[in-house]
This record gives sequence, structure tokens and C-alpha cells, in this order.
Amino acid sequence: MKIRVINPNTTASMTAAIERCARAVAGPGTVVEAVTNTMGPASIESHYDDALAVPGLLAEIVKGEADGVDGYVIACFGDPGLYAARELASGPVLGIAEAAMHTASLLGRGFSIVTTLERTAPHALDLAERYGMSRSCRGVHATDIPVLELDDPKARNVIAEECHAALARDGSDAIVLGCAGMADLCEYLTAETGVPVIDGVAAGTVMVQALVTLGLRKSGRGEFAAPPAKQYSGVLAEFTR
Amino acid sequence: MKIRVINPNTTASMTAAIERCARAVAGPGTVVEAVTNTMGPASIESHYDDALAVPGLLAEIVKGEADGVDGYVIACFGDPGLYAARELASGPVLGIAEAAMHTASLLGRGFSIVTTLERTAPHALDLAERYGMSRSCRGVHATDIPVLELDDPKARNVIAEECHAALARDGSDAIVLGCAGMADLCEYLTAETGVPVIDGVAAGTVMVQALVTLGLRKSGRGEFAAPPAKQYSGVLAEFTR
Amino acid sequence: MKIRVINPNTTASMTAAIERCARAVAGPGTVVEAVTNTMGPASIESHYDDALAVPGLLAEIVKGEADGVDGYVIACFGDPGLYAARELASGPVLGIAEAAMHTASLLGRGFSIVTTLERTAPHALDLAERYGMSRSCRGVHATDIPVLELDDPKARNVIAEECHAALARDGSDAIVLGCAGMADLCEYLTAETGVPVIDGVAAGTVMVQALVTLGLRKSGRGEFAAPPAKQYSGVLAEFTR
Amino acid sequence: MKIRVINPNTTASMTAAIERCARAVAGPGTVVEAVTNTMGPASIESHYDDALAVPGLLAEIVKGEADGVDGYVIACFGDPGLYAARELASGPVLGIAEAAMHTASLLGRGFSIVTTLERTAPHALDLAERYGMSRSCRGVHATDIPVLELDDPKARNVIAEECHAALARDGSDAIVLGCAGMADLCEYLTAETGVPVIDGVAAGTVMVQALVTLGLRKSGRGEFAAPPAKQYSGVLAEFTR
Amino acid sequence: MKIRVINPNTTASMTAAIERCARAVAGPGTVVEAVTNTMGPASIESHYDDALAVPGLLAEIVKGEADGVDGYVIACFGDPGLYAARELASGPVLGIAEAAMHTASLLGRGFSIVTTLERTAPHALDLAERYGMSRSCRGVHATDIPVLELDDPKARNVIAEECHAALARDGSDAIVLGCAGMADLCEYLTAETGVPVIDGVAAGTVMVQALVTLGLRKSGRGEFAAPPAKQYSGVLAEFTR
Amino acid sequence: MKIRVINPNTTASMTAAIERCARAVAGPGTVVEAVTNTMGPASIESHYDDALAVPGLLAEIVKGEADGVDGYVIACFGDPGLYAARELASGPVLGIAEAAMHTASLLGRGFSIVTTLERTAPHALDLAERYGMSRSCRGVHATDIPVLELDDPKARNVIAEECHAALARDGSDAIVLGCAGMADLCEYLTAETGVPVIDGVAAGTVMVQALVTLGLRKSGRGEFAAPPAKQYSGVLAEFTR
Repeated sequence: MKIRVINPNTTASMTAAIERCARAVAGPGTVVEAVTNTMGPASIESHYDDALAVPGLLAEIVKGEADGVDGYVIACFGDPGLYAARELASGPVLGIAEAAMHTASLLGRGFSIVTTLERTAPHALDLAERYGMSRSCRGVHATDIPVLELDDPKARNVIAEECHAALARDGSDAIVLGCAGMADLCEYLTAETGVPVIDGVAAGTVMVQALVTLGLRKSGRGEFAAPPAKQYSGVLAEFTR
Repeated sequence: MKIRVINPNTTASMTAAIERCARAVAGPGTVVEAVTNTMGPASIESHYDDALAVPGLLAEIVKGEADGVDGYVIACFGDPGLYAARELASGPVLGIAEAAMHTASLLGRGFSIVTTLERTAPHALDLAERYGMSRSCRGVHATDIPVLELDDPKARNVIAEECHAALARDGSDAIVLGCAGMADLCEYLTAETGVPVIDGVAAGTVMVQALVTLGLRKSGRGEFAAPPAKQYSGVLAEFTR
Repeated sequence: MKIRVINPNTTASMTAAIERCARAVAGPGTVVEAVTNTMGPASIESHYDDALAVPGLLAEIVKGEADGVDGYVIACFGDPGLYAARELASGPVLGIAEAAMHTASLLGRGFSIVTTLERTAPHALDLAERYGMSRSCRGVHATDIPVLELDDPKARNVIAEECHAALARDGSDAIVLGCAGMADLCEYLTAETGVPVIDGVAAGTVMVQALVTLGLRKSGRGEFAAPPAKQYSGVLAEFTR
Repeated sequence: MKIRVINPNTTASMTAAIERCARAVAGPGTVVEAVTNTMGPASIESHYDDALAVPGLLAEIVKGEADGVDGYVIACFGDPGLYAARELASGPVLGIAEAAMHTASLLGRGFSIVTTLERTAPHALDLAERYGMSRSCRGVHATDIPVLELDDPKARNVIAEECHAALARDGSDAIVLGCAGMADLCEYLTAETGVPVIDGVAAGTVMVQALVTLGLRKSGRGEFAAPPAKQYSGVLAEFTR
Repeated sequence: MKIRVINPNTTASMTAAIERCARAVAGPGTVVEAVTNTMGPASIESHYDDALAVPGLLAEIVKGEADGVDGYVIACFGDPGLYAARELASGPVLGIAEAAMHTASLLGRGFSIVTTLERTAPHALDLAERYGMSRSCRGVHATDIPVLELDDPKARNVIAEECHAALARDGSDAIVLGCAGMADLCEYLTAETGVPVIDGVAAGTVMVQALVTLGLRKSGRGEFAAPPAKQYSGVLAEFTR
Repeated sequence: MKIRVINPNTTASMTAAIERCARAVAGPGTVVEAVTNTMGPASIESHYDDALAVPGLLAEIVKGEADGVDGYVIACFGDPGLYAARELASGPVLGIAEAAMHTASLLGRGFSIVTTLERTAPHALDLAERYGMSRSCRGVHATDIPVLELDDPKARNVIAEECHAALARDGSDAIVLGCAGMADLCEYLTAETGVPVIDGVAAGTVMVQALVTLGLRKSGRGEFAAPPAKQYSGVLAEFTR
């Protein structure tokens, strides 16, 4: 089984960390590869960044289909381009927010999301609503650490404190990490907080693996069928199917 | 006052029709210009099309800001790139689905959307949910006429029949046209059905005009503030701010 | 185009201020007149006041229809008698809470309402629910200033402080003024807070104007059709159609 | 214990029937009196009728308070003036839609409302939403029999057929009668359908009696406290407290 | 009329107090008997306790049916086994959370629940959701007093303080007591807080009495019809119908 | 890794089929054992059956904990005793309705549940609501085949027809099987319908495996912590912890 984890931003060091976390949980027969988007912003911290990251991300899905990939994880907590990717892929595609929120909802009553910039919080709540997780998601808490500064040694203390504060304020019983760049803090924060801490990269990997094992693919009936052929103009035309 | 109506697809004939409809309702002191996206699909009928249309659409917002535009209408019923556009613009930005749904909700109890392809219906329902219009929106009805065949003379009969059927089935009291390409059918369908028929292009134009008159701009506090500067790679880099 | 703004309470000085605010935003060809209710309470601060104000308000709609009025604004934040007025009128009728909430939802993610007495807050939340604005409306904040004391010079400081507090507490990005009597504070509070501040009197005026421009009237199909003829008894009988 | 059932329309024969139904279920120590509104429409079939009925209804509450009434039932399925009445009364006040819907929700999973004119259906759904009964209320079905023709011998067959159709279509397991004028059909329809049929007049009477027995009155904290004193103008002024 | 109040835990002293409270509000012709579960935990403070209490509770319903009981109250705020009991009984069955929440919603805008252990709060919120009371229920507040220590003289002060705090924090206007063991504190807390305080044991008793008076029984159509006959194995087999 | 699949009814042949389906999807290092409840009904088709099955099911969890089981699947579509089981277990516990609904929501926009008896449908909808799947779950369709007759050769045709009908009526794009007894029809129905068909037994097995792989256990903070010690009386006392 071949799972591809796509980092929608263009920062290769982040892709490497993501790949490590994904491989650590994959089963013996599963090949996990992480790829970096070649077109777009260095990190995704606005709707604008999200929009500009998507075409490159979709080009990776097209490539993946040619490579016989069985399932995909989109490794950015905004789940950019998820529905478009689902149209292009034949196997399952999960976003890490989607995977993490569903996972958290199976373990307790309510989770808190701890994330990077305040301005991304409303989008996380929109995703919770989209996935039916509005009641489970009790709060989104920003640390105001930019994505590319998450590996600063001081960052993990700030994040741990925000986790503690979030659990108390929200009366929640699990933590969802609100950025792919936090994936390697999962173990540390689990020890710190004593509650389940969910990293969407790992969760997405095992869930895609589970879906492929079940022989399940995205539904091809209706909305997520392959998109109709179209004439494309301009600089992106060469990247289209 | 300068209002720019952006056609997110690359079909110039559709832009011309849109411009006519928008100009027909603008006030005396308002200059309305419609522009065609230069990058993307000829029509938008999938999440994939939507994703590939957005970068070009955003480039038009950047250009509009340089031109001193006061407000924008995004003239595709999927409201592509709305939030990203709102980050880039200083004045108000409305999508035509947003404008049409709010307008319909001011006139009666429930509206039916009549649209093009079945596969776009779930996205229309998502937008209704996003805008708080889930209770007002009683149904989305596809005619299965592709966007670029809407000006076929037979299309308008099919659409009129679907309007009648929708009103009866949904118990609704207004019709929302589910595609910018239907804008010039508005008068005909109003006469046919006897209920308010709302075209989002016209509705978006007068509502943006109303917001500019009130001196209101998108809120710059929080989520829709200008996006943080970022390094962009690849072919889209030249189109970024 | 003739727009009539109805002040549902009997305080003429408030009507004068309302008329000023409405005229300031009307287009060149639009005649705006504000009228004072001749029957009911001096201000509306309870469900009881609301109920007793409605018959006189409806009598103004009947009069307006005779005068060829194109659209109406009901200038009290409780939107009293809105549905009954919609039955009587042939053109559009908007309440100022309705107009202000829809407007605010087009500019940002969440608004806070700043209002007069605490006891009116649950009704404002009911209206938010009715209009689909429950997710956008993040809080209703009372200043406990009675309607008829809003022009006390000290009031505007209290209101400005409440606006600041509301933005912080609610994490909102716009302010909706919760009383027609606050209309002329709009400019001051915009300058004070730096976010969009929406006065429903002005918003209602430009939105009714927009609807009339579009040729849209309240839907005559079903619930808002003219009410069936009836025999009326008692002192109100002479005020009925 | 003194319970007053107020018929908000001006048709005395309907009041007599309502009184019979209410008295039939009252306990031994309970005095039930029904009164007819002296001011307003002969029947309530629009928002306009509702609005014009309320001042007279409220005058009855004022009178009831002077008479030492312990609790009130408002015997019209639109629950007109309920919140204003609650402000004026010291004891409990229930609307018959409120009483009937709560009652039905205690007996099964979902009820269907069978009512008079189609145009009143959306208001019934609004009330279901207000009372938290949206999930329980599976449908509102109009017979298009006007209120004052319900005692036509043919009406009961039409209503019985609509009950059968509603149970099948909605998959519901109880019927709520959508008009005070249907109160005396309750027994007949129970026998006809074999499911619980709830008449709000009877339900309201026993529930108000239950609340008074518990020593419970409307909450005087906040919204439903007695309304602030106010100056009233015009013809209604003499009817105010 | 015969009403049976079932205490689902095995503590007979609690049954005695419950019986006193239920009898105090029953009408002259109503015989109220409280019975103690003979199988299960001494108090119910977890989902596990709830699950183990239900078989004994259902055995009491079977016994009640043989005794010709007209209606039942389940006197534990978790409403354990309510739907199963409804299947077995021919008359109405109410849980005390169900009865108390509906009652509170008839008196004001929002109630606060004051209860025992924090771990039971999410279940109370689930019940509010199930009964359509999510908007009315503004908060669940734990005192962390175990059920069997509620009659400690110090408990009532702690509970009174929590009531005051809850009213202020939630902006609510009524209190719902979150445990059958608090039934005899109702009068004291009413005097202390000045708002309606609802004890579900008393509320359930008068509401069941009201339903029986109306001649209403649980709906036998569909879900709550008598359960299909089945072969039962193991130690519980002898307790089945 | 040790996963235990508990059949909450007492029919051993069903347990054998369940075990086959669960083992077919488990990873190489995972030991899956299915066990049969020793106490309760032969099949679960009412709330009453559900209630009587739970104590035996919980006894299996207690046994599983002693045996060092890592995670559990409750193999009945009503998810009986799920929350109580979660209190007792240290690892993850999933119900098959929970697992199947979450899985379906990852593949398309809306699923239809095809199940056994009509009377169980409302409970399935309750579960959808509880898991945040109300928008995804577009309908529950009963075949009226009792659980223990599902292996009748004629049953599979009836079920296949119901699947086709459900997809058309609901506009859904996936099927969820509404009974553990349908697990071995999954392959056949997938071939028949061409859409993803989800069996909760298989889905629950791979999802529990995924959670254990991630090192995640039910949250021990708050509601799902081990239940407080209690004195138990009666025949069930010997089965308690």
C-alpha cells in the first residue's frame, strides 16, 4: 500500500518532519512518502496563502494518481483543496484537521484545538462545523507563534501552557494540534498534559491506511466524481490534467 | 464610486452579459466594470475548476486595489476565493451567491435555488449554511445544463419549468438563480413565475453600492486583515502581491 | 423612488434624528420621509411596549400604500410588526435589526450588538436566530441606558466603552447598534473603535433602496400575501384596512 | 385555584366551546373561566390579525391580575402576545401551541400538526423552533378550512383524512391540533387515528394547573419582569396599565 | 389514578424523601407510591451505574403494569432507561430531568442546572439536547457533593451558593435541581434565590397526572410499541417479561 | 495488539460471522477475538433488548481488561452501553454505528443507512446526532427483516433493493449497513451498488487498531474516568467490578 502525504507549503524541512511522523505509525506493508508543494507560499497563514497553495497541491494529486498512490493525506490544518483533491483521486484523501477532529471525538467528549495565529482560528471552526464536530470542538486557541517558528525551542513551552489553559477553560478532555508543524510535539505534550493529544499527520496516515485496508475509496457518485474536462487558459494551464 | 465585477471564468462573452446586468441596476454616480479572469477554466463546474480559477481572480483584486476600486462582486455562484479576496481588498467584496441568498431572505420565507449541474448542488448548500441561510434555502435544483450552454434558446424553457417545479416541491416563495450565466433570464423568469427571482450579479452590484454608500469596508480586525507577507515559489509567484 | 421610515414609538424628536440619518445615505432620486407613530408608547423597552406600538405602525403602512410608497424601514431594533407589515405592503419592508445584522455579516466574521436595557437582549438574540445570524452574532451587550436618555452627552462614552469591551470579549470584528436612537452615534463610534459600526436606520434605507432598484417586492406567494378580509371589533376597528 | 382561558379572537361561540374543553379536564378545586377578546378580528389567520388581537388580549391579562387569577391559557395556536402577557402576569401564562407541542413531545418521537390555512404554517414552525420542538415537529399540514368553518360537519372528515395522511407522510406518532377551534374534535380524532391527539386548550389547562400546584410563577428575573412604566398616546392609551 | 415513582437506585431513605415530595403535589384523587429498585447501585453517578440500575427499574415497570399503574416517574436526573420503560408501559412515563427541563422552559428564558458530580454534567447536556432544551439550558453546574451526602446539613449552603453563582454566570432566570436527592431543598432554594426552582420529582408527578387526566398514553405507533418477544439468557432472564 | 469484538446479543452464530469479518481486515500483528454476550436477548431490536444486553456486555469489558485487551468494538448498530464501556476500559472502545458513520463521512457527502426493523430507525438517527453526523446521514431505511433472519438467502436481494432505493431517494453517495448481522453482505452490496458500502464491524476493527497504533486511549479526564466505587445489590451484584 502506497500513501502519499502532501505538504501544501513549500518548506522542505517541514516535509521531512511530517514524513518522520507519518512513517512512525504506518503498518509494515505500507510505503509512506511525503512530498513538498513546488508552487505557493512558504507557510499557510491566511486564506490567500491557502488559495495560492492549492494548484500545486492538486498537481501532486495528479502525479500521485500516475504513480499508483492508494491514498493521500493533506498535511496542513486548513485542509486546503480537500474537495478538489477528492475529485481527482480515486482512493481516499483526508485532511489532517478532518482526521484529527474525528479521532479526538472517538476518545472523549470535547477537544480543544491549539494552533498558531489567531487569524486562522475562524477557519478551524468552519472546518469543525463542516465535519460535524461543532459540539466536540470546544475552543480554538492561538499561541500566535508563526508556522515557521514552531521549532524554536521556546515554542514548545508556550504551546504546553496553552494546552493546559485550554483544557481548563473549555472543560475539554483531549487536545488537537492545529498545525502540521506541531506533529513532533505530540509525544511531549501527551506527557505534559496527561490527556490524549492528537496530531493530524499521524492520525491521517493511520486512517487513510484503514480506509484502503477496507477497500474503500472516495465515492465516485455525484459531487466527487472526476471533474468534467475543460479548457484552461493562462500560466496554470500546463498544470491541469 | 467604482465597482468591479469579476468573472472568475475565462469566457469573455459571459463577462459582457454580466456587465450589462450589473450596469442596468447601478446608480447614476457609479462606474461598473466587469473583467474576465485571464487564468483558469472556461467555466466553473467542479471544486477543481474553482480551485484553478482563484489565483487569477485574486490577481484581479490586486489590480483593482491599484486602480482605486471601491468594491467588488465575484460573479460565480460558487463564490470562489471570497475570503481570500476579502483579505486583499480594502472595500467590500461580495459573492453572488451570498448577495442573492441574503436578498431572497428579505422578501419571503424560503427560496429555491435553480442551478446548472447536479454536482454543484452540495456546494450551494454549504454556502447557504455558511451564510446562515440554511432555513431559508429550501432546495437546490439542477437543470443539468452546462454553464456554457445556458444561452441555448431551449435552456430558458427548461429553467422556467424547473422554477415552477421547485416552488411547488419546496413550498418556497422566491427563486435564486444559481449561476452568473443566468443573469439575463431574470426578467423572463419573474414574468413566468410571478414570484421574486433574484440574480446575484444585479443583487451583488446594488448591495456593494449600498455598503460603499454607508462608508463600510470589510473589517480589518482579525481574520480578514491583509495577509502576512510570505515568500512564494513557482509559477504563481509573479502573480502574488 | 419613495421610501418611508416609520418610527414605531411616539417620540417625534427621535423621528427627526432618524430622518436625518436615513436621508444622508439615500441616492439622488430617492425621497425619504420619516413618520412618527401616533398610537403607542413613547419608547419601546418591553414586549408589552412592542405589542402596543404595532397597531399604529400598521396604520402607517396602510397610509403609505395609499401614498404610493415603494418601500419601508421599521426603525426600532425589535423589528416590531415586521411580518404583519410585510403582509400589508406591496413593496419591500425591512426592520433595522434585520438590515443591520445582514449588513454586518457581509463585512466580517462576527459582530457584537451594543444596546440599551438588558431586558431587551433575549429578543435581539431571537431576531438573530430568525434571520440566520446566530453564528455571526457573538453577543448582545446592554448599557442599561434607557432609549430616551441616549442623547445625554454622557451616554456616548458609556456606549463607546461597551463597544470596546464587546469586541474584546466576543472576539468580534464589527459592531451593530442596538437601537434606532443610536443612529447618529455611528460616525463617532466608527472613529473610536476602528471597526465597521452598523446603524440599522442607514443600512435599512440603502437596502430597501437596493431592493426597489432591483424591482423586487415582498413575495406575494403564501405567508406574506395580503391578509384575508375579516370583521374587526372594538376601538381598533377604525384603524384596520 | 383560578385559571383564565383567553380567546384572543372576538367570536363568543368559539369561547364557549373552548371553555367546555378546558373545564372538562380541570381538577376539582380549580375554577376555569374563558373570556372573549373585545377588541380585534373575528378569527386570527394572518400576522396582521395576530397583531390587532394582542392589545385586547393584554387588557384581559390586566383585568385577570385585578381579579386574582392564578394562571392563564392563551387559546389561539399562534400563541399571540405570549411574551407580553408573561410580563404582565404574576402567575404562569401558556400558549396552546406551546402546551400542545411540549405535551406531544412527552409521548412519542415526532408529532404532526394539522391546522387550518396554509399561510399559517410557517408561523407554527417558528413556534416549534422557539420552544425547542423542531426535531419533534415533523410537519405542519393545512386543511385550508378557515377557523370559523371548523364546525361545519364536513370539516371533521377532512381533518381526519389529513391526520391519517400526516402520520404516514411524516412517520410521526402523535397529532397536534393546530387551532383552538378544533378542541372538541380531539376525542373523535383519537378514536379515528389510534394515536395520541393533543388539543392545546386542554393541555394548556392541565399544565397551568400543574404549574400553579407546584407554586411556580413566570420568572420575574430579567426579560419577563413587569414592563417599565411608559407614557402611552392615542386610542390604546386607555387600555394600558 | 395511580402514579408510581420509581427510585432507580437502591437507597430506601432516598425513596422515602422522594415519596414525600411527590405526594405533596398530587391531586386529591391521585394515589402516589414510590418504590425502590431492588437491583443495582446505591446511587447513580456514572454511565456504568446507570446501566446496572436499568434492569431493576424495568422490572418495576413490569410489576407496575400488573398492578394497573396509570403513569410513572423515573426519579433519577439521568432519566435512566426512559425509552425502554416507555416501551413496556401503556400509560405515560416521564424522567425527572425531562419533566424539570420542560417545566423550567415554560417560566422564563433560560435555566441553570445545579447538580452533584462534575462527571455527570455532559449527560445532563445530552438530555437537554434530546428534549429540545439546548437553548433554554444555559449551564450545568456541579457542586461535587456525592448523591448520598446531599442530606449533610452543610450541603444546602453549598448548593444555594452554586445557585446564585449559576444565575449570575449564565444570565438565567430559573434553577433546575439536578438530582432527585435535592427534592426537599426546593422550598429553601426558592426562598434563597427568588427565582423559580424546579424539582423534577414534583414536576414529573404533576405532569404525569396531567397527561393521565388528558387521557394520553405513550404513543403505541412505531418506536415505543411493546418490544417484540425474545429469548433471554443468563441471570437476567427471570426478570424479563 | 489485542482487539476484542463483543457481540452484545447471545447468538453465537452471529459472533462467528462477526469474527470472520473483523479478522479479514486486521493487520498482521493484531489478534482479534470475538466474544458472545452470556446474558441478555438473542437479538437487539428494542430499547428494552438494548437495556438488558448491557450488563453482560460490560462484564465482557471487565474480563477484557483483566486479559490485557488493547481496544474494543461493540458489534451492534445501536452502540449499546458505549459510554459505560468507555468508563471501564483503559484503551479505546468504538461502537459499530459510530465507526461506520465516521468512515462514511470521510468518503462522500451523504450516506444512507439500510437497517432491519423500522422501530430501530429513530435510535439510529439519535446516534447520528450524537456523533455529529446529522448532516451526513441523509436517511435511515428499514427492510423490516428481523436480525436473526438476515442470513435467509432472500434477505440479500431485499437489502440490495433498499440500497438502490435509498441512494436515489436520499441523493446520498455511500451506504452504511445498519446491523452487525449484515457484515458479510458488504462485498456483495458494494458490487451491486457501485458506491462505498460500510460495514461497521470491519470499520470499527481498523479504526480501533489505528487508535491503538497512535497510542491513544479513551480520555481519563472527566466523564470517562473509571466509575466511582459503589455498593451493588441484587442479582447483578456479582457481575460488578
